[in-house]
Amino acid sequence: MSTTEQQPNELQRYCEAVALRAKSASRQLALCDSDVKNRWLIASARALRQQCSAIVAANRLDLDAAPGFGLTEAQADRLRLDAGRIDGIAEGLAQVAGLPDPVGELIETTNRPNGLVLRKVRVPLGVVFFVYESRPNVTADAAAICVKSGNAVILRGGKEAAHSSRAIVNVMLEQAREVGLPVDSVQLVEPTDRAAVGEFLSLHKYIDLAIPRGGEGLIRRVAAEATMPVIKHYTGNCHVYVDKAAELPMAANIVVNSKCQRMGVCNAAESLLIHQDILDRFLPLIVSELEPFDIELRGDQRICAAVPAAKMATEEDFATEFLGPVLSVRVVPDVQTAIDHINRYGSGHTDAIVTNDREAAAKFTAGVDSSAVMVNASTRFNDGGQFGLGAEIGISTDKFHARGPCGLRELTSYKYIVMGSGQIRG
Amino acid sequence: MSTTEQQPNELQRYCEAVALRAKSASRQLALCDSDVKNRWLIASARALRQQCSAIVAANRLDLDAAPGFGLTEAQADRLRLDAGRIDGIAEGLAQVAGLPDPVGELIETTNRPNGLVLRKVRVPLGVVFFVYESRPNVTADAAAICVKSGNAVILRGGKEAAHSSRAIVNVMLEQAREVGLPVDSVQLVEPTDRAAVGEFLSLHKYIDLAIPRGGEGLIRRVAAEATMPVIKHYTGNCHVYVDKAAELPMAANIVVNSKCQRMGVCNAAESLLIHQDILDRFLPLIVSELEPFDIELRGDQRICAAVPAAKMATEEDFATEFLGPVLSVRVVPDVQTAIDHINRYGSGHTDAIVTNDREAAAKFTAGVDSSAVMVNASTRFNDGGQFGLGAEIGISTDKFHARGPCGLRELTSYKYIVMGSGQIRG
Repeated sequence: MSTTEQQPNELQRYCEAVALRAKSASRQLALCDSDVKNRWLIASARALRQQCSAIVAANRLDLDAAPGFGLTEAQADRLRLDAGRIDGIAEGLAQVAGLPDPVGELIETTNRPNGLVLRKVRVPLGVVFFVYESRPNVTADAAAICVKSGNAVILRGGKEAAHSSRAIVNVMLEQAREVGLPVDSVQLVEPTDRAAVGEFLSLHKYIDLAIPRGGEGLIRRVAAEATMPVIKHYTGNCHVYVDKAAELPMAANIVVNSKCQRMGVCNAAESLLIHQDILDRFLPLIVSELEPFDIELRGDQRICAAVPAAKMATEEDFATEFLGPVLSVRVVPDVQTAIDHINRYGSGHTDAIVTNDREAAAKFTAGVDSSAVMVNASTRFNDGGQFGLGAEIGISTDKFHARGPCGLRELTSYKYIVMGSGQIRG
Repeated sequence: MSTTEQQPNELQRYCEAVALRAKSASRQLALCDSDVKNRWLIASARALRQQCSAIVAANRLDLDAAPGFGLTEAQADRLRLDAGRIDGIAEGLAQVAGLPDPVGELIETTNRPNGLVLRKVRVPLGVVFFVYESRPNVTADAAAICVKSGNAVILRGGKEAAHSSRAIVNVMLEQAREVGLPVDSVQLVEPTDRAAVGEFLSLHKYIDLAIPRGGEGLIRRVAAEATMPVIKHYTGNCHVYVDKAAELPMAANIVVNSKCQRMGVCNAAESLLIHQDILDRFLPLIVSELEPFDIELRGDQRICAAVPAAKMATEEDFATEFLGPVLSVRVVPDVQTAIDHINRYGSGHTDAIVTNDREAAAKFTAGVDSSAVMVNASTRFNDGGQFGLGAEIGISTDKFHARGPCGLRELTSYKYIVMGSGQIRG
């Protein structure tokens, strides 16, 4: 919280000035033609490709500093930019240019008996404060998504990618000037002072939404300190339930893909529920299919009795997002028990049923309270690209405002425009 | 905040038990047929009418206690229930029964190239904690709106209406048992302990949304303490801008209606902006039309020069929701200055332009960042009933999740139901 009685210090003055410029830019941006936003995105894509070597040079500085920040080889590799990766970033911007502009979209029209005509139209939220710890491509993605949805954005990236992010933003701002997009639409805040995050989180007067992207610690800090709404992206403790009416080879495929295709992501499965009637046939199959991936099973008594390598699962195991080669497994007597288990231990992210029984599928999709409920498909499909949103700024684990993948529309609000001919209220 | 290390005290145990029952009821309610919810509403309407005298007797206890709570005559009168008012409450429930059920509504279908079919369907939020200071009819309204939208509700009304609210809820719970609605769908918490509000606001594990309804102090307290999302209903500093292309009699009508039809409500106008080109003609007209209502004008220099009774407006006057017979007035040189004034001093609630110039209207509706922007109509129309939502639980001054009048849909979220045939991610 900022001190309200005392004179603001330098950091407070700086943060407020940034936020005020963002608010002012957001007013212009809300009225901006789609054409201007799209030309900016396409010009930025072209310029990023053209200025590839300068960006690689800036990235070099981050890579040189990486050991000093304690980054592992793997982490440093994720940070690395080369021509191919920069081309990917540019391609992402071009794709956002191709998406429909959500701003001004007519959501609904209502004609009232007194002659008033109500139009509910989509408008930007205003100013987004985006705090992230991720790779430099996120800088470009977030700027593109926020601006295309009509929002000014304050970017606060991690120190590990500071030079790369600065180089990318500079290129994009150069193009903003060229095409006439308000230059304060995108502001990158240097990550030198951790206290700056707290300052921005106190400025609900100017900032309409905070989005943290990174580890759970960052998200909890932002959620706790923010005085404006936050789109949160907490854990994904995702389940696959294999019903008694499942095609077992399909079920095995879906479990393996959900668990193993990429283990460290939020839509990877962490828990397997198996209907008791197919346990004897399915268990040997899935154990053998998981074998090459070296997955540790933590199961209930029946699983442990049947699989010698399995460990006994604790309550906590069922509630844990392992993000690695561990899978909790439980035998259930019916679909309702599977639903209850998921609603109790899950995180409301993504859960799947494998079944050919329509009634079981209907019961499961109605009963499971998660952002995406899959029938006969991998949990890994819950993301903006796979859902056809074109781009996403995160996957919300909230139910309020936006749930699941957050694309352009999820960064908007609406207003009512009411056309009358002199109506007054009686 | 609840103490996490120590043993919970009695109040904490009580609040957690209430919230847990609400959560459990919300799971059943999410799957409840529209038919059951509607039969409950209709049966409750009938029972309220039948048990009218018992409710009036309970209300008598509140009225007897009113002087002890320091209620004025006018406040006590607002609290009073008689057969006519109970009939109105019953009629409200019947109307909610007639509204379409938002739960299960198909918002969007997407067919993906890989054969996945995504259905985005509307689902309840879960549990609503509703804290209010208002008249006893709000108890019935809130219960009806929350349950019809599939949400369990914890009602925490004011002590002034405690007996009346208890009598109304008892009737509704009796009918819940009759029709098979989960009885914990509606729980009324006795207002004996102020600390209970704080406890409930800490229980984000069970409660999905808090809605405060009452004075600004209550809303600020709830917003500050809540660990779950809050739908806030702050001030309405509403404007009418009379453009140079306005029909002046229509403009005067709209200003008078916006300001005077009911002064103490959020969608009443507090500020009048007049285009300089029509000042000489419009000012005498509006001054004379406002005269019977005894409205104090606080104006800028030109207003004060022309109207002897006007006082000089301060910066603060322009930012104030008077909720009474005061109107701030300013002369503006163009529509853009009016827009800038409104975005600076307004509260984003409701603002109107009176004009026959389409371009000015388009500029105003695009530029003013408010939940409802009226063209040639009174600000007083911004409410759920007038907008055709059928019922409302408040008017949100937030841009996040819900903006403007909040009816049934605004108390819902959505989930993606994804139908596959064995798709895995490559």
